[in-house]
Amino acid sequence: MSFAAVDVIRTKRDRGALSDAEIDWVVDAYTKGVVADEQMAALAMAILLNGMTPGEIARWTAAMIASGERLDLSGVSRPTVDKHSTGGVGDKITLPLTPLVAACGAAVPQLSGRGLGHTGGTLDKLESIPGWRAALTNDEFIAQLRDVGAVVCAAGAGLAPADRKLYALRDVTGTVEAIPLIASSIMSKKIAEGTGALVLDVKVGSGAFMKTVASARELAGTMVDLGKAHGVTTVALLTDMSTPLGLAVGNAVEVTESVEVLAGGGPSDVVELTLALAREMVAAAGLHIDPSDALKDGRAMDSWRAMVRAQGGDPDAPLPVAPETETVRADRDGFVSTVDALAIGLAAWRLGAGRARKEDPVSAAAGVILHKKPGDPVRAGETLFELRTDEASRIPAALSAADGAIVVADAAPAQRELVIERIA
Amino acid sequence: MSFAAVDVIRTKRDRGALSDAEIDWVVDAYTKGVVADEQMAALAMAILLNGMTPGEIARWTAAMIASGERLDLSGVSRPTVDKHSTGGVGDKITLPLTPLVAACGAAVPQLSGRGLGHTGGTLDKLESIPGWRAALTNDEFIAQLRDVGAVVCAAGAGLAPADRKLYALRDVTGTVEAIPLIASSIMSKKIAEGTGALVLDVKVGSGAFMKTVASARELAGTMVDLGKAHGVTTVALLTDMSTPLGLAVGNAVEVTESVEVLAGGGPSDVVELTLALAREMVAAAGLHIDPSDALKDGRAMDSWRAMVRAQGGDPDAPLPVAPETETVRADRDGFVSTVDALAIGLAAWRLGAGRARKEDPVSAAAGVILHKKPGDPVRAGETLFELRTDEASRIPAALSAADGAIVVADAAPAQRELVIERIA
Repeated sequence: MSFAAVDVIRTKRDRGALSDAEIDWVVDAYTKGVVADEQMAALAMAILLNGMTPGEIARWTAAMIASGERLDLSGVSRPTVDKHSTGGVGDKITLPLTPLVAACGAAVPQLSGRGLGHTGGTLDKLESIPGWRAALTNDEFIAQLRDVGAVVCAAGAGLAPADRKLYALRDVTGTVEAIPLIASSIMSKKIAEGTGALVLDVKVGSGAFMKTVASARELAGTMVDLGKAHGVTTVALLTDMSTPLGLAVGNAVEVTESVEVLAGGGPSDVVELTLALAREMVAAAGLHIDPSDALKDGRAMDSWRAMVRAQGGDPDAPLPVAPETETVRADRDGFVSTVDALAIGLAAWRLGAGRARKEDPVSAAAGVILHKKPGDPVRAGETLFELRTDEASRIPAALSAADGAIVVADAAPAQRELVIERIA
Repeated sequence: MSFAAVDVIRTKRDRGALSDAEIDWVVDAYTKGVVADEQMAALAMAILLNGMTPGEIARWTAAMIASGERLDLSGVSRPTVDKHSTGGVGDKITLPLTPLVAACGAAVPQLSGRGLGHTGGTLDKLESIPGWRAALTNDEFIAQLRDVGAVVCAAGAGLAPADRKLYALRDVTGTVEAIPLIASSIMSKKIAEGTGALVLDVKVGSGAFMKTVASARELAGTMVDLGKAHGVTTVALLTDMSTPLGLAVGNAVEVTESVEVLAGGGPSDVVELTLALAREMVAAAGLHIDPSDALKDGRAMDSWRAMVRAQGGDPDAPLPVAPETETVRADRDGFVSTVDALAIGLAAWRLGAGRARKEDPVSAAAGVILHKKPGDPVRAGETLFELRTDEASRIPAALSAADGAIVVADAAPAQRELVIERIA
């Protein structure tokens, strides 16, 4: 069935619902270049401003899945379960979580992305490990999933190509923030990847796309419904992203912190969120194991080392260290009341840890090391945080971005819950 | 000053007002291709859905004028006054009006367009006259304005090139209907053309872009304000477009009807609207003459013949006649209660009088001839309207488009006012 693109755009512009046939047609025609970029941009803006019904979102997601191949993981004997985070600052959770859940007996098919803007990308972090490579063929991916149980790699071009094209368009047309388009983008890739279960970490706060609990709840609910409709057991946790996760924000520095967690140490918030997500994943996979045991007894670390080695990485190789550093100190006594995730994320970005355009390289060593977190007591002159970079010329812009990121007050702030809500 | 296109789009998406500098930049950058079509499409949709303040519309219009040249008509000794219609079915008013107002002592610099969709284009109509040409250089345009006082020709590429590019984009992205963009498109061309005064005919009803008096009033008020802000005396009439103007809808058939009006005859609604607009134009030009005198004594007809001849046309040459015709008759006695403008416009389009894409040719002879208008008594078997075309194969689609266009009822409908409101 064929339509005129202008009629489809007008329907959404005038607050109508698109029919199944219209959605199938416009997604397919856009992927093939029959619907032009400018037409899809106008439609995406109309979707952002006028919304979509649950039925429209479900069909749009199905059309994106149908634009490419769908992996068959039935040859992997273990139950499969994946995790997706909507992106935050210092969010290295995938690194300890994937081998931990694999050590509990599940297979974790983690197709990941690269960072854009102030949020880091899991592949960028792992690429700071000498020798590690992100690109696997579908056969390598399935073999590693079967043999090691844990894979973090780049999504192949065959999965949801409509999403790949649409995401690039949304990025330059101010239409990234449309909840129907975010939900269908994430879920089309996860469903096409073939996972049996999925746990979503939907971030809320200054460092996240979703600034309010209400919008995060809407996004989470939409994605949980989409997963269920496609036979994927799906659970979402809403988690706080007003403050960076852990103490390290960057690439190599986050790998180091992740290895500390796998070794039984690491910052308490990273450990807490890793275990909370691991428990959800293990349960969603139908297993009855306490992940904290696999963390304590070293099985998670063994799984990490196997996972890194399987992709050519040397888990014992020293990681790159940044030659240039700058320290920011407290100018008064008190308690840290705020460590703003967005400001710290922007500072790490300016230091070279992130990229402005998707062709840009990232620095493995650059980043921010926090010495204090909200609630910590501090004395005047103590270090609040440290900037690390390959190029000293990047420091002034990073200092400017981080200006005011840490606030010292007379009293400690009320403690924030890391896990805000569970949606299933 | 330079901006990121995404930031400009986001501001409007989030219901903010664009700054003068942002508007100047985005219009200029789009004209130069620095802002991509997909980015302008997203912005146009955000403008359509979220609106613009009067200040934003004024600046946007100024930026469109600044994208090209501005004609200087100061060498024309007579006062200049132009008319613009937002487009309707059977709207041939420019043809008798331009020479009539010139005969009253004004100079009428009428830059016109071609038809797209169900509304006809003035240039298409005039091109049915053997020899007549629409394209004039700026020098030819000004010379004819000085010597004859009346010119209807195609706008040169140098006037508001930003509008030319943006209009083509809006046409394929469902963003034609944005009032700020309609107003700035019309007014940027008219102001750049250099006219001293302007009368706007804003159509309301089924055959018009504006379906309601409220939206027509908003558009008219916006344009009147824009004209005044640029020193152009501007007046708008809101006029009824629920029924076609006159009895002829097409190209050559509308020229014939226009010549009848210039000869002192013609359908009463065409005469009424021609005189109403002529009075406004003459007054806006600062002249004190009753246009009906110039119509009665033949001066308007003399001016028409001079205007057609100046552009190579032969006012005495026979016009093309369509070989294929089809008659639609009443199936009952009664009174005509409705002649739907949109349905008749679509029928004429399908017969070949209009074009679907701007590259398409149009038929000079095709069209619809109405035999009855609202309020006319009718007997079963009498002709309601007649279809004319070059190709008999077009008749079924035209009959289908016109199906139900004319309704015969027991009683005559209340008479509609042709001129609904005056805004100045």
